[in-house]
Amino acid sequence: MAPQYAPSLRSRLPLVAFLLETIFILLFVFFVKIEQHELIDRESDSKLFISSYAEFQDTHVMIFMGFGFLATFLLRYGFSGSGFNMLLAAMAIQWAVLMNGFLLPQRHHRKEIHISMKSVIEAELCAASALVAMGAVHGKTNPVQLLLMALVEVTGFVVNQWILRTLFLADPVYSIMLLHVFGALFGVMVSWVLHREGIEPVHEKEKTDRKTGLLAMFGTLFLWMFWPSFNSALVRDLKLKLTVIYGTYLSLAVSVVMAMSVSMLTSAKGKMNMVHVQSSALSGGVAIGVAMTAVHMPWIAMTIGFCAALLSALGFRYMKNHMLLAFECHDTCSVLNVHAVPGILGWFALLFLRLASDESTVVVQFAVYHICVLLITVCMSLVMGTATGLFLKWSIWRPQQDRKCFDDQAFWEFPNLAVKK
Amino acid sequence: MAPQYAPSLRSRLPLVAFLLETIFILLFVFFVKIEQHELIDRESDSKLFISSYAEFQDTHVMIFMGFGFLATFLLRYGFSGSGFNMLLAAMAIQWAVLMNGFLLPQRHHRKEIHISMKSVIEAELCAASALVAMGAVHGKTNPVQLLLMALVEVTGFVVNQWILRTLFLADPVYSIMLLHVFGALFGVMVSWVLHREGIEPVHEKEKTDRKTGLLAMFGTLFLWMFWPSFNSALVRDLKLKLTVIYGTYLSLAVSVVMAMSVSMLTSAKGKMNMVHVQSSALSGGVAIGVAMTAVHMPWIAMTIGFCAALLSALGFRYMKNHMLLAFECHDTCSVLNVHAVPGILGWFALLFLRLASDESTVVVQFAVYHICVLLITVCMSLVMGTATGLFLKWSIWRPQQDRKCFDDQAFWEFPNLAVKK
Amino acid sequence: MAPQYAPSLRSRLPLVAFLLETIFILLFVFFVKIEQHELIDRESDSKLFISSYAEFQDTHVMIFMGFGFLATFLLRYGFSGSGFNMLLAAMAIQWAVLMNGFLLPQRHHRKEIHISMKSVIEAELCAASALVAMGAVHGKTNPVQLLLMALVEVTGFVVNQWILRTLFLADPVYSIMLLHVFGALFGVMVSWVLHREGIEPVHEKEKTDRKTGLLAMFGTLFLWMFWPSFNSALVRDLKLKLTVIYGTYLSLAVSVVMAMSVSMLTSAKGKMNMVHVQSSALSGGVAIGVAMTAVHMPWIAMTIGFCAALLSALGFRYMKNHMLLAFECHDTCSVLNVHAVPGILGWFALLFLRLASDESTVVVQFAVYHICVLLITVCMSLVMGTATGLFLKWSIWRPQQDRKCFDDQAFWEFPNLAVKK
Repeated sequence: MAPQYAPSLRSRLPLVAFLLETIFILLFVFFVKIEQHELIDRESDSKLFISSYAEFQDTHVMIFMGFGFLATFLLRYGFSGSGFNMLLAAMAIQWAVLMNGFLLPQRHHRKEIHISMKSVIEAELCAASALVAMGAVHGKTNPVQLLLMALVEVTGFVVNQWILRTLFLADPVYSIMLLHVFGALFGVMVSWVLHREGIEPVHEKEKTDRKTGLLAMFGTLFLWMFWPSFNSALVRDLKLKLTVIYGTYLSLAVSVVMAMSVSMLTSAKGKMNMVHVQSSALSGGVAIGVAMTAVHMPWIAMTIGFCAALLSALGFRYMKNHMLLAFECHDTCSVLNVHAVPGILGWFALLFLRLASDESTVVVQFAVYHICVLLITVCMSLVMGTATGLFLKWSIWRPQQDRKCFDDQAFWEFPNLAVKK
Repeated sequence: MAPQYAPSLRSRLPLVAFLLETIFILLFVFFVKIEQHELIDRESDSKLFISSYAEFQDTHVMIFMGFGFLATFLLRYGFSGSGFNMLLAAMAIQWAVLMNGFLLPQRHHRKEIHISMKSVIEAELCAASALVAMGAVHGKTNPVQLLLMALVEVTGFVVNQWILRTLFLADPVYSIMLLHVFGALFGVMVSWVLHREGIEPVHEKEKTDRKTGLLAMFGTLFLWMFWPSFNSALVRDLKLKLTVIYGTYLSLAVSVVMAMSVSMLTSAKGKMNMVHVQSSALSGGVAIGVAMTAVHMPWIAMTIGFCAALLSALGFRYMKNHMLLAFECHDTCSVLNVHAVPGILGWFALLFLRLASDESTVVVQFAVYHICVLLITVCMSLVMGTATGLFLKWSIWRPQQDRKCFDDQAFWEFPNLAVKK
Repeated sequence: MAPQYAPSLRSRLPLVAFLLETIFILLFVFFVKIEQHELIDRESDSKLFISSYAEFQDTHVMIFMGFGFLATFLLRYGFSGSGFNMLLAAMAIQWAVLMNGFLLPQRHHRKEIHISMKSVIEAELCAASALVAMGAVHGKTNPVQLLLMALVEVTGFVVNQWILRTLFLADPVYSIMLLHVFGALFGVMVSWVLHREGIEPVHEKEKTDRKTGLLAMFGTLFLWMFWPSFNSALVRDLKLKLTVIYGTYLSLAVSVVMAMSVSMLTSAKGKMNMVHVQSSALSGGVAIGVAMTAVHMPWIAMTIGFCAALLSALGFRYMKNHMLLAFECHDTCSVLNVHAVPGILGWFALLFLRLASDESTVVVQFAVYHICVLLITVCMSLVMGTATGLFLKWSIWRPQQDRKCFDDQAFWEFPNLAVKK
């Protein structure tokens, strides 16, 4: 009878979570204070606060509601999708506040970490990076593995930012917007190392239905609607901020139209696929996020959204299965097509737009620098993803059996289902 | 076997969408820039931006989340309800930015269209008008038809605004608030022309269940909660803006109470109807939106909400079926009772409030002017709606069969349902 | 056949609601105006408005969306959960505006009630108090009973605030933050008086499933995400406001982690319980809300969140059934563990933090004062809850039968379910 149940995590998850949470609180005791200068430094104190708080809230909604409900699309994995998303994000944020404070200190106070609107928004974006990575292994890992993976991912992402900012003097906003590329490649590598033979080619439980499709639509819409705030939250210059907001808005509007069209065009029966549409509709936001500092005209933003959705929808339709068959890499939410490919498209767009506007002497220099930034991010994410995958393969973490993948029953009580069905 | 399936749109929708989207991007290339003066014109630049951006976000949430999920109430039409809502709104917004820019230019720059917070909020309101119209034909048209209908509706609505503003020197905010009346009548006429014998009197698939009722509740709540922002977004004077916010808030609170009471009172078994409650709870917002410039006391707003919900709930209970039987007009979401009737009620309220406060000489003049404004809007919407209906009847658009109405299967892939059920 | 149906409320609810709504509108006619000084009093008028309006919107979303969807967790009681929540909150807000205006008048205008952002936020918080109380009797009362209970609860809560502010010169923000303790104890007493033998020990219909669990997750997330605004909305000092925001945010992040860990640890099979997790994840916000004026360091907030979730999750697991068996008190949403216990924990935290920071002479005085405040609130809520319960037991309100508890069928039309299932 024993092997019928998924291994119990009773002795694992509470222990790991208690321990980590206690360590976090102790670190907060010694290192973290609430920023007080935030208000005194500048004249327009409350104005600044209001603006930042609204942007923080929009980002907050995207992380917990957007990612959380986008992750409920699997028929039997909704509790885990939204629940683990909340657990991971809550832990990742605390850890990101600490990591950002240690590695990327603000001016003026290098010995203490000060919590401010800026620091919590940055922490939320780091958490977003971990949640993107989680998409690749969605349904195939237990919460202990996810928790450890999230913390390693955040660490890697912050270290990557530190390298880019210190060695390459990269723009902080640009370095943080690479979160999609970093997270997606990290997640894909973890998923590749943790590959399960048993879920190939199509797992019985990896499916969606009318109701979970709508709940996922819900998460999609929250991400889609607040993406302009997500991209512009850390931009300080008001003119650029507005340009980013309008650009993201238009890019996403075009993405929706393209995602639906391509999804219908590539289907033999001329029908749209809800999962493809939901994912590809967001690709315009990813692409424009990377390229945003160089996009000053609405039509350029729309063209980027057009191409991103095209690539993403085609990739979801044709590449996901190919990856599984050819590379033995199962990428549940197809984060490669939704985050990595549009992210790299945005990188190309940024390169071309800069090359088109700058003078010739600086061009080569910029291109080399720009290519290095991407290469480092890609290498970091691939290496750390592989290492994390190997670490998580350790049987001490009690991974569930193949049969129990994509299934809430392994982790959640359903006392009444037994009676009902 | 062939007639068993709905006609494939593979050769229609992608083509039409690609084409339109390409045209839009080309028009944006030549005519649209991002507004830069928005910030320089005024002293309190960032303050203005913050306020507008929050109102824009509230409106944005209403259009995509509110209308989108209100449209999921049909048991088998949830994907289409929320998905097509997103497609239509995304297209309508782009088109409305262009139309508004061409026909209703801002001062200072008549040759270019400048994107600003104001212009995107106006575009969202025009899209709302199209979505109201869509409610009348909900479930009985395919996405190509919906797309064309939305674009024609936006064109008609902007032309109507242009007439009202140019010939009647109407207040811009008032002329845009007639969106409910225009959209509802337009939609009802389209539905009347496209009448299908097969869905009379009750279509087998036109029903709701516990879960879709809750998802629609969800959309209702988003519309209900953010309606104060919807009505006040374009009001510039801060005192009037606050008055509108409090008025809309109180009017909606009373609407909810009345919608539930009337729904229970008019039921033989003393039970409430969720669809009626959801729709009528919103009618107070519609009515106050039209009358808002003249409502300065909370109790007047509450009385308007009281009457609007009363009329709307009675109309939903008794008039919807009557319209189908007597006029052969099937109005799926009963937009006539939810948008047109409360809108006209608001128009009457505005008339009476103005007459009560103004001096006698101006009175007749105002009444004549006021009646003309409504007549023109009504005529425009009826004529354009009929014309659009005739255009959409063309079989080139491949309408689905009667049996396939209110059914997602015609447009969306459900690979797993075949296995499951 | 007659006893098969729940008693019809057709002659009760519409009458009561019409009557109350008419009385409210009449009271508004004579006493309520829209605040105009709000804008003229201060220099930074629009800034203030923007900030307050955003906070109001966040609170508004919590009341209607958060509480509304948290209440949909029961499988067959979703329509009632969200629908009655909307009805009650809409009525409670109108009544709270009046009660607050009569009993707790603002300076300058004692004869009229002026609607301002502050007054509507306060009204929403009073409504929150009534909704907490509703949680205890959730599913076991009809809407007429709920409506009357909500109005009495709001009255009691405002009277309690008046006593605390007048006799004890308590801080207004602190006295309103006791809403959790007051509401929960009030609700538990009502539930105790209305005890039904028939629903013991486990009612057949008191259960959740995958989909309703996710809809409740949804309400939970809205409450969880916007709680920082809920706690800080009435705090005027900007420094304290920021401290409250960061404190609530961190406390809630820790609560989530602890809620999940404890839920898994206390389960024999090592599985989490979604209902426990959803409720306990919010307890950190309750506790910090009471203690917030004395919490200046992030780690203290985190520790409070840690303890609150621990107590709340243990209470939900072990105390809910114990209460039912030992005291014959059925507390559907376990508001005692989710609101009362964390609220009292926050009270203790406030006491200790004040004692630790103040000088010795003031200490005893503060402790006595502090204990009196809690005692009065507890007594008021217990007494009024009992009285309300006795009043609602009156059969004129036509309570549904035991069999019809936790069931929408008693109050909502499901025309199609008969056909379908």
